[in-house]
Amino acid sequence: MLPPVAIDRKSPTPLYRQVYDGYRDAIVLRRLRAGERVPSTRDLARELGISRIPVLTAFEQLLAEGYFEARVGAGTFVARVLPEDFHEPSRKAAPPSASPRPGPRRVARAADPLLRDPEPWLGGRGPFRLSQPAVDRFPVQAWSSLVSRHLRNPRASLLHYGDPMGHAPFREAVASYLRTARGVRCEAEQVMVVSGSQQALEIAARVLFEPGAPVWMEEPGYVGAKDALTMAGARLVPVPVDGSGLDVTAGLAREAGARGAYVTPSHQYPLGVTMTAARRLQLLDWAHRSGGWIIEDDYDSEYRYEHLPIASLQGLDRDARVIYVGTFSKVLFPALRVGYVVVPADLVPRFAAVREAMDVCPPSLFQAVLADFIAEGHFGRHLRRMRVLYAERRAALVDALAQELPQLEVVGDAAGMHLAAALPPGTRDRDLAVRAAAQGLWTMPLSACYSGQPRRAGLVLGYGGVTEREIRDAVKRLRTLVIEPGGAAPHPPTPPRSS
Amino acid sequence: MLPPVAIDRKSPTPLYRQVYDGYRDAIVLRRLRAGERVPSTRDLARELGISRIPVLTAFEQLLAEGYFEARVGAGTFVARVLPEDFHEPSRKAAPPSASPRPGPRRVARAADPLLRDPEPWLGGRGPFRLSQPAVDRFPVQAWSSLVSRHLRNPRASLLHYGDPMGHAPFREAVASYLRTARGVRCEAEQVMVVSGSQQALEIAARVLFEPGAPVWMEEPGYVGAKDALTMAGARLVPVPVDGSGLDVTAGLAREAGARGAYVTPSHQYPLGVTMTAARRLQLLDWAHRSGGWIIEDDYDSEYRYEHLPIASLQGLDRDARVIYVGTFSKVLFPALRVGYVVVPADLVPRFAAVREAMDVCPPSLFQAVLADFIAEGHFGRHLRRMRVLYAERRAALVDALAQELPQLEVVGDAAGMHLAAALPPGTRDRDLAVRAAAQGLWTMPLSACYSGQPRRAGLVLGYGGVTEREIRDAVKRLRTLVIEPGGAAPHPPTPPRSS
Repeated sequence: MLPPVAIDRKSPTPLYRQVYDGYRDAIVLRRLRAGERVPSTRDLARELGISRIPVLTAFEQLLAEGYFEARVGAGTFVARVLPEDFHEPSRKAAPPSASPRPGPRRVARAADPLLRDPEPWLGGRGPFRLSQPAVDRFPVQAWSSLVSRHLRNPRASLLHYGDPMGHAPFREAVASYLRTARGVRCEAEQVMVVSGSQQALEIAARVLFEPGAPVWMEEPGYVGAKDALTMAGARLVPVPVDGSGLDVTAGLAREAGARGAYVTPSHQYPLGVTMTAARRLQLLDWAHRSGGWIIEDDYDSEYRYEHLPIASLQGLDRDARVIYVGTFSKVLFPALRVGYVVVPADLVPRFAAVREAMDVCPPSLFQAVLADFIAEGHFGRHLRRMRVLYAERRAALVDALAQELPQLEVVGDAAGMHLAAALPPGTRDRDLAVRAAAQGLWTMPLSACYSGQPRRAGLVLGYGGVTEREIRDAVKRLRTLVIEPGGAAPHPPTPPRSS
Repeated sequence: MLPPVAIDRKSPTPLYRQVYDGYRDAIVLRRLRAGERVPSTRDLARELGISRIPVLTAFEQLLAEGYFEARVGAGTFVARVLPEDFHEPSRKAAPPSASPRPGPRRVARAADPLLRDPEPWLGGRGPFRLSQPAVDRFPVQAWSSLVSRHLRNPRASLLHYGDPMGHAPFREAVASYLRTARGVRCEAEQVMVVSGSQQALEIAARVLFEPGAPVWMEEPGYVGAKDALTMAGARLVPVPVDGSGLDVTAGLAREAGARGAYVTPSHQYPLGVTMTAARRLQLLDWAHRSGGWIIEDDYDSEYRYEHLPIASLQGLDRDARVIYVGTFSKVLFPALRVGYVVVPADLVPRFAAVREAMDVCPPSLFQAVLADFIAEGHFGRHLRRMRVLYAERRAALVDALAQELPQLEVVGDAAGMHLAAALPPGTRDRDLAVRAAAQGLWTMPLSACYSGQPRRAGLVLGYGGVTEREIRDAVKRLRTLVIEPGGAAPHPPTPPRSS
């Protein structure tokens, strides 16, 4: 009998491993059958021309794992209990290794809507990619000295599993910041540390909504929120956004019994409008009376240029109906993966349980570092600097657009790190964005944010991570795309295409 | 008309904010009505005895946010468009702030099974808490100098959003490690970086299983896996574990058409047994023919004491049916929150899409650090040291149990960082564990890992994070609990209670 092992002396794989792998594969692929005899280690070593030691090691392992069995006085055999001997008729007829028909590869369909065609405007960084803060202005020095301080002598409590809600001192710091800067009514016990607003949305969707539950979604709205809600099984009810924010009356007309509403009241994503006081109160009244939940995604509210930041919707809520979501991705840097969600007190145990089942707890080090970063004033200082910087970049973008592309209507530039440039209704903004991406201009078409027929066309332009010079240059390049034949011209005969 | 604002000069809240908050709250609580006139800033400032500047700032903000409106020549008013003026009869009858019946607080029931009574054995660290590596032996020096190296001059690509699959050089390092050390067949493209095995299970469950899909679960088995699968809507089919691992024949008898199976073949959680070759092949054959998926949770396979580590089940798979899950929590430290999942190539886009919808991408810094930590040999060195250390601790525990509690049968001590000490069937192991926890001995009762009627009783003892001296002392203390009246004695008349 030929040994089923070919030895390659030049391979980096150790000899014992080659012997082990050879026999195991031969058994798995049914080249060796249950009960078949294998040579003695002495014979095999001689035959392969190698020392007996690797053969012994391999055989011991094959015995330990149950591929081989030793019979006293008779030698070593392929284990008789291997599956060939299980009495299943179908097996006898066709050994599975030779089976022509493997089973189907079925997967959950809930992920189907997430499998979109690649979106070219997400293909690079630079002008006008959304959600890119000025990471080159991040105070790396202060940050890394705090990291070193915590790493030098780490407390065991920061190395072991932590609280699913997060590190207590950091939650205190976040609660205090949110009370002062965002008018959020909360105690540290209500703050859960998450990896960013996306995880907050995912956990909130799991806790709040049964499969099939109708949920109001801003139209146009944030695709990431749609994904999290869809994956939880919620049924999205698109509710139009006008100049005052989500049109609550339209939502009541479409589905008054919705179980929740997703809103970005400080700076609507993508249109940039701020929800008015009237709409806020109307939305809270609906939630109070119907038992709906409001998810307030306050992703970039820290930057507001003409007035003080608008206080949170959560701070107006007297009925603990609002789940408040925020992130450090925009104010520090995205790869940090730290955000937070403020949870109504009675829902804290559910949020904690779902979080624990999803990923146990957040990593600890950066929570400890961030708590100090806030306490020692670095955070406030960085925010103030970035507010000035982004105000300059915004002004440069608004000016450049007014000069180069006066036909575009700028909306939503009062806050945040992006604005929308509206094109005549019916413009094929997606085609324009695809052509822009091919030239390194990463601008999202407004139509990509609609679930139904897009009512508006336009380009969403991020300016956080782009210098004023780059902005002016990029707007000039954008101009040639918009004014070229077929650029921003409405496509008269056909209705605007749905995304 | 009295101003609705009370000024507290001693409060740390700025004066403008007190004025703003006072008016806003009065409007939200309907003490001021839509269209009502407010005093001039001059009159209000005089009345409150403060300068006019904070009053002006507050009024500007209230105007900007839409709580106030200015009418030329007439003064400032509470905005008329506030919800009282929306024509809804129910509103007129009973303003919501006075509504006696707020809506229900409905939540998704999928989280109900996660809301368990507190488990006292999870209440502290120390002997014999599970899943606690020797974090005090972690090479902090080497680690923090690598962290500093990456932080000193961070590349922008490490600060921005990253690939949902993880940082490419780290995925290469993980793939190479898994091929060599665990016999996993994979390319870096199949490796997804996650926050630990829990997130891997959560994502796998979402991708693979429709709500209601039957999935084999080891009985007894890992509660964290049950939680992830349950939350995804899978229907768990408990399949008994015997001395050879999951009893595949029993699984076939219970539900041959299961859509998946969760297994811990290297070191079963909690019993510690290793799945034999025969069972592995039988399980793979079932998966191949039925189209079932196998989730292999290889959470602590790096530590094996009498033979070489058992190669992964995934490496035997010729049909891309195995989702291989591993973590750095046990081999480095849990608060790192870094793990990985090796995904069949055709499922990579789905795993990536679900991950992106859940939390976008993993944090980048520690991936870059870990890639170096592995490449520079720190990882291999630490693993070898810990294998020696845990072997000593295991020996100390086995010896101490043999001396102090010979009536307990030790199982599953060939690998990992825990073993199980079996008690006579019918012992109330949960009561024993509760009493042990009260004395600072954190041992999980075997019955807590059963979904149905527990077939075995016992205590699961972790020894990774406990010194030999602590182990000997703790076993002595455990002895007094076990032998005290009602301790380990079976409770004859009643059947064993279900967890």
